Amino acid sequence: MLSKNKIKYLNSLKRKKNRLIEKKILLEGYRIISEAVLFKKNIKHVWISNNIKSKTNICSIVQKLKNNKIDFSYEDHKLLQLISSTKNSQGIFALASINNIYNQDLNDFGKNVIILDQISDPGNLGTILRTCAWFGIKSIILSNNSADIFNDKCIRSAVGGHFYIDNFKYLSVNEIVSFLKINNYNILCADLQGQSINKIKPLKKWALILGSEAHGVDKNLKIGKKITITQIGNIESLNVSVACGIILNKLTYQ
Amino acid sequence: MLSKNKIKYLNSLKRKKNRLIEKKILLEGYRIISEAVLFKKNIKHVWISNNIKSKTNICSIVQKLKNNKIDFSYEDHKLLQLISSTKNSQGIFALASINNIYNQDLNDFGKNVIILDQISDPGNLGTILRTCAWFGIKSIILSNNSADIFNDKCIRSAVGGHFYIDNFKYLSVNEIVSFLKINNYNILCADLQGQSINKIKPLKKWALILGSEAHGVDKNLKIGKKITITQIGNIESLNVSVACGIILNKLTYQ
Repeated sequence: MLSKNKIKYLNSLKRKKNRLIEKKILLEGYRIISEAVLFKKNIKHVWISNNIKSKTNICSIVQKLKNNKIDFSYEDHKLLQLISSTKNSQGIFALASINNIYNQDLNDFGKNVIILDQISDPGNLGTILRTCAWFGIKSIILSNNSADIFNDKCIRSAVGGHFYIDNFKYLSVNEIVSFLKINNYNILCADLQGQSINKIKPLKKWALILGSEAHGVDKNLKIGKKITITQIGNIESLNVSVACGIILNKLTYQ
Repeated sequence: MLSKNKIKYLNSLKRKKNRLIEKKILLEGYRIISEAVLFKKNIKHVWISNNIKSKTNICSIVQKLKNNKIDFSYEDHKLLQLISSTKNSQGIFALASINNIYNQDLNDFGKNVIILDQISDPGNLGTILRTCAWFGIKSIILSNNSADIFNDKCIRSAVGGHFYIDNFKYLSVNEIVSFLKINNYNILCADLQGQSINKIKPLKKWALILGSEAHGVDKNLKIGKKITITQIGNIESLNVSVACGIILNKLTYQ
């Protein structure tokens, strides 16, 4: 049974400081854990609510856990509610190690890189990771003042996107600029004014810079070709993860 | 000063039942209210925190309120925190009437219509409204089991998108199907398998059907041409609002 101390420990992982010390995260929800199991990403233990143990999709996860020799246990639903980040918990949780799950060596970053500057909303960040996973983008760089990719809201909205990224690094704006220039990326910077994304010709090696909705891209990171999404209505801006999807659909379609 | 009863009343509008009875909503946040003032959409009163009254952007809103003869008052920040839906309130709120703000007459729906089936996440729904506003789509139909467009999370994530939609209606699946068929729309249905959106030829009169991520499109609404977003990675699905943006970018670009 989940002890008081264990509950306290798992809840402590909701704070960035503790995640960094422990190098562990708490995953919650069927779809995320289903993807995580697929990747066997250092899963330490899975807790499943007694209320859902006989559901078909849970039985299929349990089979995968058994096949991969991952520890799991059934628990009282009310007890699991104590570690949930949502009002109505789906009743499935996993403790995963994040020690060295990403390659941080810039020499290994791919020919297509996403640069995220000051993305402070963890929900948007998660949706961007999920979108990158859909379009096969495996290298992501964030400016130091961006949200934590292991924030629980980010994990929830990425719905497993985390497990499809190979290379991940937080850098200062200066470090990002020199990385892009030294490595001869075609640099594209999303902006409200620039060349229409619909007119961009296919590129092989590119880096796409996306800034926060509130602050835009840092002035020192406004480099490369400015690109924009053709606007027809009059609203002020588009959600950054939607913009990311529209641009990636264009850049990855040859 | 905001009375206890007024606070109770404003908080009661966070429940759908009460919004429907009162035909009023509570708006929160600078960007949303800035858009709302622009449209003068039946704003009854605006409350502004004393903490922010001297900020430049707030002064510019106050000027607009004065020009449009909209009632407003300055309030204690702690008092306003009591009606906030967020932990760190921006300190600006508005009470708006939603009585007859949308045209519900199907005869007036435009040549481009978005159909949303079972979109239950209000955050996604709001981002879709914002995306529609960007691409100039002014007619939206939702299946009856979709989230409420006046849910506070939906209003927050739409960031003013609500004010750019002209025609809005909740219908049953059967009513949607007959509306689309009688009016000879080119029907496109987003699906994991279908013709690539990148190969779709320009259309003049179209209706785009989007389903929820969890349940997809209702089987009775799976009509028209199936279209899909080309996938390169292996993740199971894309966020529905991102998918909406990618498809609209293609459909509205001639």
